[in-house]
Amino acid sequence: MINLWFWLVPVASVMALGAAYFFFRQMMKESEGTPEMARIALHVRHGALAYLKQQYKVVGTVFLCLTVLFSFLAYVLHIQNPVVPFAFLTGGIFSGLAGFIGMRTATYASARTANAARDSLNHGLRVAFRSGAVMGLVVVGLGLFDVAAWFLILTRFYPVESSLDDPLQNLVASHNLVIITTTMLTFGMGAAVQSLFARVGGGIFTKAADVGADLVGKIEAGIPEDDARNPATIADNVGDNVGDVAGMGADLYESYVGVILASAALGAAAYFGKGADVQLRAVLAPMVIGALGTLLSIIGVFLVRTREGASSKELLGALARGVNGAAVMIAVTSFGVLWAMGVPNKFGIWLALIVGLLTGIIIGRAAEHYTSQAFGPTQRIAEQSKTGPATVIIGGIGEGMMSVAIPVLAVATGISLAFYFAAGYHFDIDHIGLGLYGIGMAAVGMLSTLGITLATDAYGPIADNAGGNAEMAGLPPEVRRRTDALDALGNTTAATGKGFAIGSAALTGIALLASYVEEVKIAIGRILEKGSDFAFPDHTVLHPIASDVATLQNYNLMEMVTHFQVVLVNPKVIVGMFVGAMLAFVFSGLTMKAVGRAAGLMVDEVRRQFATMPGIMAGTQDPDYARCVSISTKAAQREMMLPAMLAIAAPVGIGLIFGVPGVLGLLAGGAVAGFSLSMFMANSGGAWDNAKKYIEEGHLGGKGSDAHKAAVIGDTVGDPFKDTAGPSLNILVKLMSMEAIVVAGVAVAVHLL
Amino acid sequence: MINLWFWLVPVASVMALGAAYFFFRQMMKESEGTPEMARIALHVRHGALAYLKQQYKVVGTVFLCLTVLFSFLAYVLHIQNPVVPFAFLTGGIFSGLAGFIGMRTATYASARTANAARDSLNHGLRVAFRSGAVMGLVVVGLGLFDVAAWFLILTRFYPVESSLDDPLQNLVASHNLVIITTTMLTFGMGAAVQSLFARVGGGIFTKAADVGADLVGKIEAGIPEDDARNPATIADNVGDNVGDVAGMGADLYESYVGVILASAALGAAAYFGKGADVQLRAVLAPMVIGALGTLLSIIGVFLVRTREGASSKELLGALARGVNGAAVMIAVTSFGVLWAMGVPNKFGIWLALIVGLLTGIIIGRAAEHYTSQAFGPTQRIAEQSKTGPATVIIGGIGEGMMSVAIPVLAVATGISLAFYFAAGYHFDIDHIGLGLYGIGMAAVGMLSTLGITLATDAYGPIADNAGGNAEMAGLPPEVRRRTDALDALGNTTAATGKGFAIGSAALTGIALLASYVEEVKIAIGRILEKGSDFAFPDHTVLHPIASDVATLQNYNLMEMVTHFQVVLVNPKVIVGMFVGAMLAFVFSGLTMKAVGRAAGLMVDEVRRQFATMPGIMAGTQDPDYARCVSISTKAAQREMMLPAMLAIAAPVGIGLIFGVPGVLGLLAGGAVAGFSLSMFMANSGGAWDNAKKYIEEGHLGGKGSDAHKAAVIGDTVGDPFKDTAGPSLNILVKLMSMEAIVVAGVAVAVHLL
Repeated sequence: MINLWFWLVPVASVMALGAAYFFFRQMMKESEGTPEMARIALHVRHGALAYLKQQYKVVGTVFLCLTVLFSFLAYVLHIQNPVVPFAFLTGGIFSGLAGFIGMRTATYASARTANAARDSLNHGLRVAFRSGAVMGLVVVGLGLFDVAAWFLILTRFYPVESSLDDPLQNLVASHNLVIITTTMLTFGMGAAVQSLFARVGGGIFTKAADVGADLVGKIEAGIPEDDARNPATIADNVGDNVGDVAGMGADLYESYVGVILASAALGAAAYFGKGADVQLRAVLAPMVIGALGTLLSIIGVFLVRTREGASSKELLGALARGVNGAAVMIAVTSFGVLWAMGVPNKFGIWLALIVGLLTGIIIGRAAEHYTSQAFGPTQRIAEQSKTGPATVIIGGIGEGMMSVAIPVLAVATGISLAFYFAAGYHFDIDHIGLGLYGIGMAAVGMLSTLGITLATDAYGPIADNAGGNAEMAGLPPEVRRRTDALDALGNTTAATGKGFAIGSAALTGIALLASYVEEVKIAIGRILEKGSDFAFPDHTVLHPIASDVATLQNYNLMEMVTHFQVVLVNPKVIVGMFVGAMLAFVFSGLTMKAVGRAAGLMVDEVRRQFATMPGIMAGTQDPDYARCVSISTKAAQREMMLPAMLAIAAPVGIGLIFGVPGVLGLLAGGAVAGFSLSMFMANSGGAWDNAKKYIEEGHLGGKGSDAHKAAVIGDTVGDPFKDTAGPSLNILVKLMSMEAIVVAGVAVAVHLL
Repeated sequence: MINLWFWLVPVASVMALGAAYFFFRQMMKESEGTPEMARIALHVRHGALAYLKQQYKVVGTVFLCLTVLFSFLAYVLHIQNPVVPFAFLTGGIFSGLAGFIGMRTATYASARTANAARDSLNHGLRVAFRSGAVMGLVVVGLGLFDVAAWFLILTRFYPVESSLDDPLQNLVASHNLVIITTTMLTFGMGAAVQSLFARVGGGIFTKAADVGADLVGKIEAGIPEDDARNPATIADNVGDNVGDVAGMGADLYESYVGVILASAALGAAAYFGKGADVQLRAVLAPMVIGALGTLLSIIGVFLVRTREGASSKELLGALARGVNGAAVMIAVTSFGVLWAMGVPNKFGIWLALIVGLLTGIIIGRAAEHYTSQAFGPTQRIAEQSKTGPATVIIGGIGEGMMSVAIPVLAVATGISLAFYFAAGYHFDIDHIGLGLYGIGMAAVGMLSTLGITLATDAYGPIADNAGGNAEMAGLPPEVRRRTDALDALGNTTAATGKGFAIGSAALTGIALLASYVEEVKIAIGRILEKGSDFAFPDHTVLHPIASDVATLQNYNLMEMVTHFQVVLVNPKVIVGMFVGAMLAFVFSGLTMKAVGRAAGLMVDEVRRQFATMPGIMAGTQDPDYARCVSISTKAAQREMMLPAMLAIAAPVGIGLIFGVPGVLGLLAGGAVAGFSLSMFMANSGGAWDNAKKYIEEGHLGGKGSDAHKAAVIGDTVGDPFKDTAGPSLNILVKLMSMEAIVVAGVAVAVHLL
C-alpha cells in the first residue's frame, strides 16, 4: 500500500486527459468557415500528417536500433538496467504522442479560429485558447500517466513498503526506492530522443519553408506573406504545426517528466538511510506537486472565461488571471500538501519551490524585456535599421548576448537559494544531497502549472496559422488583424511559461549531474555482481545484491566524485568541458547550415514553379503545394540525422575514452555554454522579429521603408536562431545528461574491467 | 650562481632588441615618397599618438587605483604578496611599451611601404616585413628582459642555490623557487590589464571608424574605400594602427610572458621535493626555450631574403622558409638544450613541446580552411550571397559555429598527449603536477618562435595601411594592387602564428587553474602567519615561514582541491561556471554594442561634414579628419570601461561570495565557453571578409553585383566579430585567471577568517 497521496497522480492524469478531450470536442463543434478555408486547412492537415508519418518512420528506426543496443547491453552483457529498453520505448512513444495530439488539434483549430475571428476577437481567442489547452493538458496528463504507471509496475517488483518492526524490510524498501527512481529516469531518455528529432526536424522544416517562402515570395515576387499564389505557403503553415506545435509538445513533455523523475531520484538518494518511510515521502513529493499543479491548471483554464463582447484588455486580464492564479494557488497550496504528506524539511522544500517559481518569473520577464518592442533593447535594434541591415544584425547580436546576464544570474541565485533552504540553511557540499533535492524541487515548482502555461504558449502558433488560413482564403484584412492581435496578446502571458521552461531545464541539468553519479554507483554494483542482479526477482524475496548496494551506498556523493577524481583540475574533466561547450556551438552550426541549405532548395523550387507555371501569378492555376511540403520534409529528415547522431554519440564516446570524469565535464560544459548560447539565440531572434513588427506598426518610416527592409533581413536571420538552433540546444543538453545516465554502465564497465 | 643556461635569456633579449633596432633603422632609411604621402602618414601618426596618449591616461588611472589597492592588501592587510604592486606595474608598462613601439614603427612604415611598392612588390614586402619584424622582436625582447630582470632581483632576496651537503639550504631553495615563480606570475596580470584595454579600446576605435566610414562613404556617398574625401578615412587608418598593431603587440606580449611564467611556476610545483637543483632546471626550461626560440627567430628573420626581382611565389617561399625554418629548428634544437640543461624527464617534456607545435599548426590550418576563399566554407558563404544578405549572415554564422570543432578537438588531444608524455606516460590525476607542467611546456613550444611568427602577422596591417596611404595620396591603382597582394601573401603565413596564439591561450588557461590552487596554498600560509612573512627578509636568514610553507607543501594539488571541494557537483563550482560562460557572452555583447554605438556617432559626423562642407565632395576642401579621430577616441575610451571593469570585478566578486570553488568554476566556465565563442566570432568574421574578396575577384557577378552588396553587409557584420569581440575574449579569459591568482588572498582571507 503506497502512500495515499500517490493516488493523486493518476487522478490528476485522468482529469487532465478528460478536460483535454472536453476542450477538443468544444473546439470541433465550431465551424471551419467557407469551403475555401476548409480546403486550405485540409491541405495543411495533410501536409503535417505526411511530415509526421515520415518523421516517425525515421525516428522509429532510430528507436529500434537503440532498443536493440540497450537490450544487448542489458541482457547479454549485463552492464545495463534490464528495464531500460522498455522505459526508453514508452518515453519515446508518449513524447511523440503528446506532440502528435497537439499538432492534430492545432491543424483542426486553425480554420476554426480564423472563422471565429471573423465573428469577433473574443470568439477567436476562445477557440484558440481552448485548442492550446488541449495541448497543455495532454502533455501533463500523459506525463503523469507515464510516471504513475511505471511507479506502480516497479513497486510490484521492488516493494517499497516500510514496516515499523522489521528493519530488514525497511532497508530493502530503501534500496528499492533508489533503484526504482533511477530506473524511471531512463524513460526520460526516450522522451529526450523523440523531442530532439521533433525539435530539430520540425525546426528545420518550418524555417526552410518560412525563409524560402519569404525570399522568393516577399522579396523577389513582391507578394505578401501567406499569399496563396506562393507555392511554399502551405509548407510554411505546415511548418508552424510540425515545428512550433508538435516540436514544443514533445519537448515540454520531456521537460515535465524529466523534472519530476530527476527530483524523485534525488529525493531517494538524499534521504537514503533516514528510513524508507521518510524517503518515500520525498520521492512522492515531486509527483504529487505535479499532480496538484495539474488540478490547479485545470481550474485555471476554466477561469479563463469572459462575458460575450469583452474587450481585448479584459481578455488579456482573463488569460493572466488563469496563469497567475494557478501560480499563486500552487505557491499557497503546495505548503499545505507538503505538510500533510509529512515531507521531511517541508518548510525548506516549500521555500525552494517558491524560489523556483520566482526564478522562472524573472527569466520570463527578462526575456520579455529583451524581445518585446515595448522595451529599449528591441527599439534600439529597430533604430539601427536606419543605417541598414549590417547595423541591425550587429545590434541584435549585441543585445542578444547582453540578454544572457539576467537569466544566468537568476539561475545562479536560484540554485544557491534552493540549495540553502532545502539543505536546512546550509550552503556547502556536506549537505549536497538535500541541496540537490531542493534544486530539483525548485524546477518542479516552475513546471508544476505547465498545463496552463503551455496552453498560453501553444495558442500563439494556432492564432498564427489561423492568420495564414485567413490570408490564403482571401478573408477581409480585419480578420488577419484580429488573429495577429491574438498572437501578440499571447506573447505577454507566454513569456512566463517560456521562463519556466528554460529555468527548469537549467536546474534539471544540474540535478542530473548528481543522478549520473548515483547511476554510476548502481552500475558498479550491477557489474560487480555480473548480471545476477536486477533480473526481476520475486518481490517477496530479498533483493540479491541488497548487501552490495548497501556497501556502495556507504559511499556518499562527495566520496564518489573524489574517487573518480571529478575535480576541476583533472585534465579529463577539462577536456570533457571543452568538448561539451564545443558541441553546443557545432550543433547550432549544423542546424543553422541545415536551414540555409533546405531554404536554398525551397527557393529553387518556388522559382521553378513561378517560371514554368505562368498561371500561378495570374491566379488561374494552383501552385504545386505538395511538392514544396515534400521538399521540406525530405530536407528536414536528411538534415536532422547528423546533429542528432552527434548528440547521441558524444556521451558514449567521451565515456569510453575519458570515463566518468570526462562525461561529467562534458555534461557541465555543455550545460553552461548551451544555456548562454540558447538564451542568446532565442532572444536575438525574438528581438529581430519584434523590431520588424515595431517598424510595421508605423515607427521609423513604417512598412516599405528602407528601415523596414533592413529589419526584414534581421528577422530572416533570426528565424533559425529562435525557432531551430535555440530551442534545439536545450534538448541537446538534456538528452546528453539523460543518455549519460542510461549508458553509465558502459563507461564504468570499460574503465573498471 | 644560477644555472648557466639562465644567461641565455638576457642574451637573447638584448639580441632581439638589437636586431629590432637594426631593422627599424633600415626601414627609416627608406623614403616616405611624395609630400602628399608624407602628409597623410603624418596625419595618421598624429592621430594614433593622440589616441594612445588618451588611452594611456585612462589606463594609467586604472593602474594607479589597482596599485593602491594591491599595496593596501599587501602592506596593511598583509593578505597579499608585497611584490605584487611592483610586478603589476612593470607588467603593465612593458606590455604598453611593446604596443607603443610596434605602433610607432607601423605608422612610420606605411608611407615607406607604399613608396617601396611603387617600385616593386619585392621592395614593398621587404619594407613591410622588416617593420613587422621590429614588432615581433620587440615583443619577445621586452618579454625576456622582464622575465630575466625579475628573476635576478627575486633570487637575490630568495636564494635558489642548492648545496650537495646542506639539506636545509636545499629545502629553503626549493621553497624559494615556488615563491619566486608564483610572485612573477603576478606581473602577468599587469600585462593582461594593459592588453585588455589595448584590445578592447583599440578594437572599438578601429571598427567604429571602419564601419562608420563604410556606411556613409561606400554605401551612401558611393566613394571608394580609403578615399581622401571621406572624413573618417584617417580615423580608419589610425584604427588599424591602434587596434590591429598596438592591440596585437600588447596582447601577444602578455601571452608570451604569461606562458613562460605559468610554465615556470608549474615546474617549481611539479618538482617540489625532488631536490632544488632538479626543480631549478624545470623552472628555467621554459625561459631558456623562449630564449632559444628568439635566437632562432632572429635567424629566421634574416633567412627571409630574396634576390632583387624575385617573383611573388619566391617571396612567399622566403616567408614560409623563415617561419617554418624557425619551427623546425626549435623542434630539433630544443631536445639538445633540454638534454644539455639536464631537465628532468627531458624526452617526455620534449614530446610535449612537439605536441604543442603540432596543435598550434592544426589550429592555424583549420582557421585557414574556414576563412580562406580558397576553401569550401568561405565559397559556400559567397554562394549564399546570391539569395541576399540574410542567407549570407545565416551561412557565415553556421560555418563559424562549425569551425569550432577542429580547434577544440586539437586542444583536447593536445592537452591529453602533452599531459601523458610529460607525466611519464600516465594520464591520471596522481601525476597531475608533471602533466600540467607538460601542458605549460606545450604552450611554450607554440610561442617559442613568436619573434618571427608575429613578424608575419604584424606586416599585414602595415601593408593594409600602406594601401590606404596609396589610395588617399592618389597613387596609380597598381600600387594599391601590390599592397593588397602583400596583405594577402601574409595571410597564408600568418595563419600559423594565429594558431599558436590561440592554442597557447587555451593551454595556458588550463595551466593557470593549477597555479591558482598553488597561490591559494601560499596565501593560506601568508595569512596564517599574519604578515610576518615575505617582508623582504635578509636573504642570509632562513625564511620565517619556511616551516609553514613546508607543512602546506605536504598537501598536494588533489588534496587541496578536495579540501576546497572543487568537484563538479558542488553548486558553488557550478554557479561559478554558469557565471563564467555568461561573462564571455556579456563581454562580447558589450563590445559589439559599443562598436554599434560608436559607429553611429561616426556616421552622424561624416554626414554632418558632407552636408555642411560642400567642398569636400568637390575636392576643393579638406574634411575635418581630426574631429573623426577624436570622436572615435572618446567613444573608445568611454565604451571600454564597462567591459574592462566587469572583467576585473568578476573574479573578486565571485571569490568573495563563493570562495575558491566559485573562482575555479568561473575560470573554467569562462575558458571553455570563451574559447569556442571567440573561435566562432573570429572565423565567421574572417570568412565574411574573404567571401566579399572572393566576389570582388570576379566570382558570382563580381564587384557591384547584388551578390557583392550582400557580401559587403556580411563583411561589415564580421568586422566587430573578428577585430573587437573575438580577440578581446581571449584576453578576458587570461585576465580573469591572472587576476584570480593575484587576489587569491582576498577570497582565502574572507573564507578562512
